[in-house]
Amino acid sequence: MLPKALTNLVDALSQLPGVGPRTAERYAYYLFKTQKKAASDIVEALSGLKEGITVCPVTYELISSDRKLSPIYDDKNRDKTTVAIVEDMFDVVALEQTKAYSGTYHVLGGLISPIDNMTPEMLHIPELVKRVIADKVKEIIIATNATIEGESTAHYIQKQLEGKKIKITRLAQGLPIGLDIEYADQITLSRALEGRRAV
Amino acid sequence: MLPKALTNLVDALSQLPGVGPRTAERYAYYLFKTQKKAASDIVEALSGLKEGITVCPVTYELISSDRKLSPIYDDKNRDKTTVAIVEDMFDVVALEQTKAYSGTYHVLGGLISPIDNMTPEMLHIPELVKRVIADKVKEIIIATNATIEGESTAHYIQKQLEGKKIKITRLAQGLPIGLDIEYADQITLSRALEGRRAV
Repeated sequence: MLPKALTNLVDALSQLPGVGPRTAERYAYYLFKTQKKAASDIVEALSGLKEGITVCPVTYELISSDRKLSPIYDDKNRDKTTVAIVEDMFDVVALEQTKAYSGTYHVLGGLISPIDNMTPEMLHIPELVKRVIADKVKEIIIATNATIEGESTAHYIQKQLEGKKIKITRLAQGLPIGLDIEYADQITLSRALEGRRAV
Repeated sequence: MLPKALTNLVDALSQLPGVGPRTAERYAYYLFKTQKKAASDIVEALSGLKEGITVCPVTYELISSDRKLSPIYDDKNRDKTTVAIVEDMFDVVALEQTKAYSGTYHVLGGLISPIDNMTPEMLHIPELVKRVIADKVKEIIIATNATIEGESTAHYIQKQLEGKKIKITRLAQGLPIGLDIEYADQITLSRALEGRRAV
């Protein structure tokens, strides 16, 4: 029914995560109608993707190809002895936006998840262990998601670093700002209780 | 923080309808990780979009550039005296999938919506009026959405065709299949009552 050129685009867009055929159709139709701007922007950006991005060999952050190291790791004002462990680059962006952190990062490249076939070997954990020694790291902040995958990855990392004389911390779990206690789920509320702080 | 090549892609993808920065980031990251397949598919499909698609000059359906007319309109087995009026090409696809319609289509290219600056002049309504005469149309099925925009477009079309000796129908409104009456909203239920049929 639909022209081949359009179904090709629908099929291509359906590969995006969480995009079903309906959404892909909506995107495709939009791109067809406004083809000049959005479509050419996307083509251009995708074409520049491969050459423009590389991975920092120390922190595994995504960086511009014209750099050798992550700009955060390379920054003299950032504390290399404090390392926050995150799942991916967007977690780095989120933490940086808080402007509350002056240490460096280590990107795992995923979380341990048997369902998704993500095993510990696929994450940059051995590199982390080496880095702990090389950079004389004093504190590791495990900043993985508050999910089952995040928890098990955190436990795994903790085990790998056992015996090393470093402080290992995790992000606090508790009530998110703005939430009424009566609407909090049981787990969140029990974590908030466990983690209660003296005032 | 993020490499320029990645933020370019996030910005480009944010132009898609209903895609916020978070979703665009997720898409961009996915495209970066699996760049060989999905990204090149999208680039290829977008590049072929302009040349591959044209608009049928009679029905305003989207068609392959190598055709002159919509394959449905061109089909001798389809009844040209029955015309279903739809918003866009995907509605044609949806109706065709029912296999319950043997007439032809007329694509409006949108619905009247003052909020979105869609005025009747932007739709292919004059062309419809001409077609009614040229093809000696006997029945017009107004198959616009059961929304405010769909309703007002339907009323507008009805007015434009006033005085012409044709049957004008609209798609039935009522309970969708599988819905419990107790969960139906009031408007749907009152439409179902209004449109009740003898058994």
